[in-house]
Order: sequence, then structure tokens, then C-alpha cells
Amino acid sequence: MKNLLEKYKEISTLGEIGGLLGWDTEVNLPPKGAPERGEQQALITGIIVDKWHDLEFQKLIKNLSPKNKYYRPLNHSLKIYTKIPKKILVKDSKLTSKAFVVWHEAKKDNNFKSFAPILEELVILAREEANYLGFKDNIYDALLDLYEPGLTTSFCKNIFDKLTPELTHIIKEITAGNDRTNSLKKVKLPILTIEKQKELNNFILEKMGYDFSAGRVDTAPHPFETTLGPYDIRITNRYNNTFIESLTGAMHEGGHALYEQGVDKKLADTPLAHGISLGIHESQSRFWENIIGRSKEFSEFLSYELKVKPDDLYRELNKVKPSFIRVESDEVTYNLHIAIRFEIEEMLLNGKIKVNDLPSVWNEKMKKYLGITPKSDSEGVLQDVHWSHNSFGYFPTYTLGNLYAAQWRSVMLKEIKNFKSLVKKGDFEPILDWLRKNIHVFGKTYYPDELSVRVSGEVLNPQYFLDYLKEKYL
Amino acid sequence: MKNLLEKYKEISTLGEIGGLLGWDTEVNLPPKGAPERGEQQALITGIIVDKWHDLEFQKLIKNLSPKNKYYRPLNHSLKIYTKIPKKILVKDSKLTSKAFVVWHEAKKDNNFKSFAPILEELVILAREEANYLGFKDNIYDALLDLYEPGLTTSFCKNIFDKLTPELTHIIKEITAGNDRTNSLKKVKLPILTIEKQKELNNFILEKMGYDFSAGRVDTAPHPFETTLGPYDIRITNRYNNTFIESLTGAMHEGGHALYEQGVDKKLADTPLAHGISLGIHESQSRFWENIIGRSKEFSEFLSYELKVKPDDLYRELNKVKPSFIRVESDEVTYNLHIAIRFEIEEMLLNGKIKVNDLPSVWNEKMKKYLGITPKSDSEGVLQDVHWSHNSFGYFPTYTLGNLYAAQWRSVMLKEIKNFKSLVKKGDFEPILDWLRKNIHVFGKTYYPDELSVRVSGEVLNPQYFLDYLKEKYL
Repeated sequence: MKNLLEKYKEISTLGEIGGLLGWDTEVNLPPKGAPERGEQQALITGIIVDKWHDLEFQKLIKNLSPKNKYYRPLNHSLKIYTKIPKKILVKDSKLTSKAFVVWHEAKKDNNFKSFAPILEELVILAREEANYLGFKDNIYDALLDLYEPGLTTSFCKNIFDKLTPELTHIIKEITAGNDRTNSLKKVKLPILTIEKQKELNNFILEKMGYDFSAGRVDTAPHPFETTLGPYDIRITNRYNNTFIESLTGAMHEGGHALYEQGVDKKLADTPLAHGISLGIHESQSRFWENIIGRSKEFSEFLSYELKVKPDDLYRELNKVKPSFIRVESDEVTYNLHIAIRFEIEEMLLNGKIKVNDLPSVWNEKMKKYLGITPKSDSEGVLQDVHWSHNSFGYFPTYTLGNLYAAQWRSVMLKEIKNFKSLVKKGDFEPILDWLRKNIHVFGKTYYPDELSVRVSGEVLNPQYFLDYLKEKYL
Repeated sequence: MKNLLEKYKEISTLGEIGGLLGWDTEVNLPPKGAPERGEQQALITGIIVDKWHDLEFQKLIKNLSPKNKYYRPLNHSLKIYTKIPKKILVKDSKLTSKAFVVWHEAKKDNNFKSFAPILEELVILAREEANYLGFKDNIYDALLDLYEPGLTTSFCKNIFDKLTPELTHIIKEITAGNDRTNSLKKVKLPILTIEKQKELNNFILEKMGYDFSAGRVDTAPHPFETTLGPYDIRITNRYNNTFIESLTGAMHEGGHALYEQGVDKKLADTPLAHGISLGIHESQSRFWENIIGRSKEFSEFLSYELKVKPDDLYRELNKVKPSFIRVESDEVTYNLHIAIRFEIEEMLLNGKIKVNDLPSVWNEKMKKYLGITPKSDSEGVLQDVHWSHNSFGYFPTYTLGNLYAAQWRSVMLKEIKNFKSLVKKGDFEPILDWLRKNIHVFGKTYYPDELSVRVSGEVLNPQYFLDYLKEKYL
């Protein structure tokens, strides 16, 4: 076991080093440094792949009892690194580098046709990889499992089938002005300088319990969280002339960071380190961003700090309106954006639609779910980077995160008696303690389903999310 | 050859990755992240050492003809990585980590006795390593060669024998008030905010020709330059309430950075990439910091920008006075600080003195060369970090840099006709062009001696430096 863990620790440490290369690329890299950085990242990735292919290491994993706590996470990773032949991984790396640039140009020029040929290649590659990885029922399952161990197409389909009609109903009511939040009313909030925004965000992050002596906040084109070591968990943010976007960004990434900072340090550099899945991770970021950050009580707390009217702040934080861009959408419409991507990916992978059908399929589904039609492919089918990265199967985890967050909330309301008044006071310690004790400390010990049952007595159930929305808006 | 260069490129890329880990440690690392960072750095170092021990790689090097341009740099590195047994390298790494902490405490507490036992171990280790590396005449030669290929004790001794009496004489004259700079006269310069200092330094770095699209400037406890790729050459700086220290720091590190930015890009990731030695590197930093930055003409240029009196600025930049701390000393007394360290290291390595003799030997030599006696070991024998790093043999390269810089200047004065008026105008382009063409582009192609002969027709000659000082001060 000592031998196995020592070998794994090297892989884990190399992963952190690769993480630093990635963080630095987003935060610091001088423009001309990009090509060499690419070589540095490829080299580290290559060394990691080689270590997974080390036969002695593989033998140690194969000798593990299925009851061993490391058995499952090690075999999950081993599958990803070894079932797909190296030449396919190399092809993947080259194709996605190229595709990112093509996508970027195509989006800029609103020219789907220029992206279509390489997207076609990416879909073929994704199918090839899924076949190597293996699946029971649906080829798309193999890709979902990469980001959310155990997730299947049919599970997602059930979720969205329950979710979409209800969401459509809620949106109709809000659009008609029948919402409690009165979100259509225009409000004017003060403009904060970037320095003031940073101060505000750091104040909130401190309140949330983010440990600045084991992390830092930097500026980058996109907000993200990255784990560079058990005591080096960094977040980034970006700043506009409204403080709302950087504040919600800080709380979102702060939620990811609290999860990583809260994993039992005894698990550091073992196969159980880090959050278990993208969905559970997103449940943490969305919990802080939406459940806390967009609550009436938080608006009361923050309005006192900001010296604005609580209702104005609450309304600004909760504008609900069908829109084209996923990342700018509100907590009600957001999951319909994901439903569209889920349906499209499933059909693409199974050959039910072709790449060239995408713009029209996209626009039809936008009309169906959100009642609006993008004026261009740039604000439609071309908006997201994920497909250029060959990240098919990634999108559904965003919705899982939203749903899990509401499910945790329902338990918390029972187990933390004065939950709402704590938020109103900005006293988040009991809330963080609850997340730590019930979710964070375990790292990868429990699969998402198992964790959900432990925490809430049942697997993911979209009803909690729907109840939360109805309670809030209707 | 292709195979050899591919293997070398991996080592070079790993070196850049290690460089990023080091840079981030100084600039960004959250306090609690230090232990894991140590593991990350050790892992990269281990992979690099393994690659030098790869028998196939060694065979490719052994098959090179001595006339091949890569023969010399490859064999120089190979010697360092393979002649010293791995267990000694591991011992070195562990002992120096420990010694740094012990030294840091000892300096803080002014307690040489607490540092002495581990320093004793370090001297024994350095001797052991020197014996593995091999030498002709003096055991100290083996260590000098690590930092300055080909440098010997006898060469250094000749230099210092010529330098020290003349420097002592110049200092006496200045101390007596017989200097042209009238450096004893007190002046008062404006205080600049850190933001204003950064603006000023960036303005000067731009003027010097530093490419900000292939580098960046950050704040760190100590100023340094680091090369993270052919187009990613960064510097750091620190800021006090006077702008003098950060300005000279920026010009010093900028000089190092210009050298690295100027190496022929065709040499990138080959054994000829980067500056050839610490001495030649220091000739670049000292050239910009002292020869340019402390010149009358530069004071005229800068005083116009800063709206101060040129004479005040010139005097502030050229205060000459024997003092205890090397890094704060002026360009005249600086080399006497180095002479002391050179003599002590040579005696220590050869067993002519013992570690316990160091405080008294140090103070005697300070009295002899600078006429002053440190009041404590903290501002005496304990002041520098180098010995705790087992960097015996490093110090003399500082003096070589000072001397080479003056030697380059003497050639430049002949070859760039309007040298002084260019500096007065802040037009450094012809000067940088000269450095590029004569020194930078070659990378490690020529050994320091060979480069010196190519550039100036002779090997290092301290007379140029002495003439420069006399012309300036007497």
C-alpha cells in the first residue's frame, strides 16, 4: 500500500504542477509566452500519462481488493488514462488545441460553417473515445461518467423531463409579472471601483470562511477555482462597472474553494483527495452564489454593509428573464440552457442529428424552452467553449449542481434551526460547519449518489429545486 | 542529433517548470502552501536528475565530437548531475533546506554559535562534492567552475591582488572628501509612492528595451530575474520610501532580463540557451545598474523626467562609504566585500581556517579592507544567505560582473561614438544593439574568457574597472 500511495502521490503532485502552469497561463503569462507554455503543459501531461501506464503501478492497483477505499477512484482514473490508446489521446490534444482557435474565430465572425468541419471531427473522436471507455446502454454514458462518476443518460433524461415543464411554467408566471420578487422593476445601484469591489468580495469571502493563508484571489479573463496543493487553493475573478458580477463570481468560486479547503487533510495527495465530481462541486459554488447570495436574507445583510435598499439589491440579484447567453442567465432559466445542450449532445453522439443541423436544432430548442430565437449563431450554438475542448458530457453537471444545492438547503433548513437569521447576520460559520461535516471532509470517499443519500436520505431529486424556486418567486 | 536535442529539450522544459515553481513561491505562494511546494520542486528536480542519468542520453553525449558546439555545455552539466552520487545530492538538498532555517534564526538572534555546527557540515559536504567533481590545483576550483565555467582560484587571486590595494586607496581619497562626486554632501530627493515608482521603473525598462510582451515585473521580498521560457523572462522588485533602491533594482534585474531576451531564439531549449555564466550575467545587470544608471549623463536624463536637480540625483546615486552590508554597498566598496568572502571561502575549503574562526577572521578582514568593524555577527559574518545554500564559489562572480561591465564600457566608448550623449537623451537603443550583437545573441556559445577576447581583445582585466572608478571619483 505504501508503494502504491507513493506512486500516486507523484501523479497527484504532477497534477498540482500542471495546475500551476494553467493558473499562471490565465493570470500572468506574457502574450508571447503561450507557445512554450503549451510545450510545458504537454510535457507534464505526458509524464502523468506515462505514470498511469507504468506496469508496476497498474499491478498494485489490480491487486487491490474491491473493498479497499482507493479501489474505485484509482480504477476510475486508470480507465480514463489507459483504455483510450495513447495515439487517440495525442490526436485529442492536437485537435482540441486547433479547434479552440477555430471556434474562437468562428464565434467572433458569427460563422458556424467555418467551425463545422472540425466539430465533425471532434464528434467522431468523442464517439471513438466513448467506445474505448465502454458503456452499458448509451454511448453518451461513457462521457457523462468522466465528469460525474456513475451518471447516465437515462438518469439525466428523467431529471430534465421533470424539470423542463415546471421551469417553463415558472418563467411564464415571472414574465407575466406574477412574481414575488417583482424582478421586472428597474433599480439603480451604486457603481463601485474595482478596488472597492475587491474589498467587498474579500470581506464576503472572509465571512464565508475562505482561508486566505491557504489561497489567494487574482484577476483573470474568466473566474475559476484551482487547487495547487492541500493548502494552496486559489480563485480568480473579473470586474465590470457593476459589482454584482464580481460579487456573485467571488461567492461561486469561493464555494468551490471552500469544498477543496474542507477536504480532510489526511486525504491530501491520496486518490481520495479533492471533490468527488463536477456536479457535487457545482452544488457548493451554486449554494454560495445562489442559495445564500441571492437570498432575501443575504440582501438584507449586504445592503446594510453597502448602504443601499435591501429590496433594490435583492431585485438586482434576482432578475429573471429568458436570454441567449447561458453564463449570464438567472437561476430559473439557467437549467433550460443546459437541457438544450444535454439533448443536443445525446443526439449528436448517437448520430440522431448531424453537425450541420446544429444551428437550426439549437434555435428550435431555444424557441421551445425559452421562447426566444438567437439573432446569430455567435449568441446561439457557438457561444460555449466546451465542444471545442471535446468536453461532451460536461454540461449536465451544471444542472446537477443547481439541484443538489437546493437539496442540501432543504436538509439545512431542518438541521440548522436559525438558518435564515444566521444569513441575515452574515454569520456563515454554522453553515460552513454543516457543509464541512456532511460533504467537504469526505473528498472522493462517496460517489455523488451515495453522498446524496447520506446527506438527504435520497438520491438527487429535482423537486427540492422546483420547490425552492416556487417558494422564492411565485 | 535530433534525438539528443529532443531529450535535452525535455530537460530544458522541466527547468522552466521548476523556474515557475520558484517564481511563484517568491511572488504568490500563500504561507501555508510552502511544504507542498517543496515537494513539487523536489519532484521536478528528481525527474531532471533522472533524465541526466538516462544511459541512452549519456551515450548520445559521449558520442559527440569535442568540436560539436553542444559538446562543452552538455558535458559541463553532465558532470554536475552525474559525478556527484545521488545520495550526496539528496543529502545536499536536505541539509540546505535545514541550514536555511537555522541561518535565518541565527542571523535574527545574532547567534553565530547556533549556525556553526550545520555550517561545519556544509563545508564538509562542499569538500566532498568538490572532490567528486574533480580539480587540478585547488579544491575551490571545482566549486568556482560550477558558476563560472573555467574559473580558477589563482585567476581570482590575481584579480583581487590587483584590485584591493587600489580600491583601498580610492576609498581613502573619497572618505577624505577628495572626490569629484562630492558624495558626502547631503541631498534631499522627493518621496515617490510605490505606484509612481513602478511607473518610473517601467518607463526606464521600456527605454532600456525590455520587452513587456515577453516578460513582466512583480513584487517580491528580493529582486531577481528568472527565465521561464524564451519569451517569458520575468523580473521582481521591492519598494521602499525612496525610489533609488527600486530604480537601481529594476535596472539591475532588467539588465539580466535583456541578456536572456537577447539570446538567439534559434538556441532556445538547446544546450546553448541562456547566459553563459553568472559573471557574464552580472556584467549585464551591473552595466545597466552602475555604468548607465549611476552615470552623470543618466542623472541628467532622469532629473529632467523627475524634475529634480541633476547634481542631487547624481550624488544620491553615488554615495561612497565603507559599510557593513554587501547588498547595500556602493560600486567602489562592493568588491572589497567580495574579496573578503573569496579569501574566507578559499581558506575554509582548504582547511586553513575552521568554522569557529569565522567571526574573528571576518572582522579582521573588514577592518583591514574597509576600516570598520561590525558591531554584531548579524551585520558581519551572518549577513549573506549563500553559505546556508551551500553556494561556496558563487561570490566571486559578482566581482567578475563589475569588472566585465567596465571592460565592455571601454570598448563601447570606442565603438559607439556618441555614447555619453545617447545616455543623456535616454536613447539606449544603440547601446542595447551593441550588447545584443556582441554578447547576448551567443547564449552559451563562448566561454567567458573567449567572449571577453572576442569583445575586447583580451581576457578579464581589472584595470578597466579601476580606470573607470578613478575617472569618475578622483
